[in-house]
Amino acid sequence: MKTAGMMVLIFATLCCAQDNSTFQPATTNVWGAEYPRVDSAGRVQLRVKAPDAAKVRVNFWSGPKGDMEKQPDGFWTITTPSLVPGLHYYMLVIDGAEVSDTNSQGFFGGGKYASAVEVPEPGSTYYSIQDVAHGEVREVWYNSKVTGSWRHALVYLPPKYGTQTKAHYPVLYLQHGAGEDETGWIRQGHANFILDNLIAAKGCKPMIVVMAYGYARRVGEPPDFTAKPFGSPEMMKAMQDMSAVFEDDVTQALIPYIDSTFRTIPDRDHRAMAGLSMGGMQTFQVTLDHLDLFSYIGGFSGAGGMLVLGNRKLDPKTDYNGVFADAAAFGKKVHLLWIGVGTNEPERMRAGLLRLHTSLQEAGIQHVFYESPGMDHEWQTWRRDLKDFAPRLF
Amino acid sequence: MKTAGMMVLIFATLCCAQDNSTFQPATTNVWGAEYPRVDSAGRVQLRVKAPDAAKVRVNFWSGPKGDMEKQPDGFWTITTPSLVPGLHYYMLVIDGAEVSDTNSQGFFGGGKYASAVEVPEPGSTYYSIQDVAHGEVREVWYNSKVTGSWRHALVYLPPKYGTQTKAHYPVLYLQHGAGEDETGWIRQGHANFILDNLIAAKGCKPMIVVMAYGYARRVGEPPDFTAKPFGSPEMMKAMQDMSAVFEDDVTQALIPYIDSTFRTIPDRDHRAMAGLSMGGMQTFQVTLDHLDLFSYIGGFSGAGGMLVLGNRKLDPKTDYNGVFADAAAFGKKVHLLWIGVGTNEPERMRAGLLRLHTSLQEAGIQHVFYESPGMDHEWQTWRRDLKDFAPRLF
Repeated sequence: MKTAGMMVLIFATLCCAQDNSTFQPATTNVWGAEYPRVDSAGRVQLRVKAPDAAKVRVNFWSGPKGDMEKQPDGFWTITTPSLVPGLHYYMLVIDGAEVSDTNSQGFFGGGKYASAVEVPEPGSTYYSIQDVAHGEVREVWYNSKVTGSWRHALVYLPPKYGTQTKAHYPVLYLQHGAGEDETGWIRQGHANFILDNLIAAKGCKPMIVVMAYGYARRVGEPPDFTAKPFGSPEMMKAMQDMSAVFEDDVTQALIPYIDSTFRTIPDRDHRAMAGLSMGGMQTFQVTLDHLDLFSYIGGFSGAGGMLVLGNRKLDPKTDYNGVFADAAAFGKKVHLLWIGVGTNEPERMRAGLLRLHTSLQEAGIQHVFYESPGMDHEWQTWRRDLKDFAPRLF
Repeated sequence: MKTAGMMVLIFATLCCAQDNSTFQPATTNVWGAEYPRVDSAGRVQLRVKAPDAAKVRVNFWSGPKGDMEKQPDGFWTITTPSLVPGLHYYMLVIDGAEVSDTNSQGFFGGGKYASAVEVPEPGSTYYSIQDVAHGEVREVWYNSKVTGSWRHALVYLPPKYGTQTKAHYPVLYLQHGAGEDETGWIRQGHANFILDNLIAAKGCKPMIVVMAYGYARRVGEPPDFTAKPFGSPEMMKAMQDMSAVFEDDVTQALIPYIDSTFRTIPDRDHRAMAGLSMGGMQTFQVTLDHLDLFSYIGGFSGAGGMLVLGNRKLDPKTDYNGVFADAAAFGKKVHLLWIGVGTNEPERMRAGLLRLHTSLQEAGIQHVFYESPGMDHEWQTWRRDLKDFAPRLF
């Protein structure tokens, strides 16, 4: 309503009170919080107390941004237009201070405990808890000689892991995006419920899923890419340098720890890696450097596209040490190469992945290319990615 | 500096730049955040961006509260006097809006993802990660017929649980306080590291620790005590009513789930319960109603004190169904009754627990009374409580 480029925001007013009856507190709220509320059309109502503020704005990262309206009681409110289903990160800006909404649970994204609202997808049950057997998510700490530190990871174990004590399982390493951490795939993505539901329906093999902390630095090395402008070439370079340390951590510390701690099938035929955004870039880097360790590869809205190749096509002869040079040999070695992107992702991200897809086609590299309809660079895309990817494994 | 009752806050100024060299980013910060910073004297520096705000305040829940100072660059800063060691919850108030500091990790407390800063305790290693064998923390979901819902709990398993597959273990049920949730004992309390370190030093028996979500309501029942004024008699009543549902959940759903899922020793001699604040009140309620299930009882800054008895003494003949009426019988049945409080806790809380302690003494009930020196109603008290309590179990 303020500028041509801004999505129109419809403010909640008294005249709309009759519509409010269908608004329900979001499942992502903290216990007892009445707001944010969501209606069946996917509209979101926010309500925030800021009695002395001059201006309060809301910023949905993949959605509307706009001013909230001050009410006489000192609360600020807004009703958004319909949002697509899924988990929507947002932040508030109160007199210039970017802050989380204390009504929302905190979800680690953008390098902070961000707010988010879950807009239900009508009829979708695949990523919510159902009356099926549940796996466990375990927090583990492993000592990494690469980083010289204890590192925290989450490990999903399939439902019968505890009772079928002779069974060994394949392993999927599943990575978060930049600004997120090892908790993202469980808390934002519901990866555990996606696996529970797939396994219950015999839609995928029972597997172990390892979610590691995707940042790493060697002892004595300075941090970090967080100080670089987000999306800048300097940040991309720093992210790749950091990922080289992460690569060593995964291959030299994490995999040995997982294989010695859990009943895995510790060979390349039973080891997969996938990740979203930065995690997809890291997946390509780790797996293509280590085809001795991995044979299933997934890049969710991130892979060898923009983050690595910039605006150019893949050169199968030279990129990634030439692993794509011999398509037949690659196809024999790699059981699955999977890349995905949402149809509504930002142009640069989307173009990079489409270019990678075309490059791979031209090089004769067999792969799956999946497009998440109507979705942006957001968790609903990555939930769908996992739902499509996991059944193809092992 | 503003009012007589307010703790004095020393603002960071250029003249103090030489002191800043000893300030280090807090371990509770998000990755890469330079603030909050802590020095060796326990002073805390905060820095928050709020360029258009007219007033920014900080509110340490068990510590200083006061105005921050605007700097020319749009950031607001403050340096606190020395804080006692431990985890200090705090919130910011930006033009009347109470919000978290995005530089801090989010810790669920006060019904929201609050900010906190860890002030190290010189020489203390018992609650930090050490080079010893680590247990695992597992996320589990159990279906409760009491609440008609899937409920989330965390379960600590001692280091050798996974390899000594014939061993069975005693169980400690360990509860959070009001406004916190099942994650508190791990994320704020470091209960897993406390147990790891005790077990490694043979300071306590290897045990399973179950941390449940302490809120519950029956299907169809309305929520909740959150709408009641905090600390009001209405809230206390609502909390007790809610705890009766939690009691059924623990005894009818959680314990059967734990005993059927993990290798426990499923009898009262190998089952303990403890909790902090509201969790201590719940512990007394659950265990004293179910001495058939429990034989070790811990109330950390909360028990049968103020929360249950108000300002009166315990009547051993009638309170808690008269379990304290026969001291000898009680002593035979209950292997440990443990209550603790910090020496600097709010007067009402402290007086209630001292009164309970005296009442128990007068009734001839053997128990341990522990005082955490110099500590308020805060996590450092409860970490110490667990360190004293766990070695006395089983």
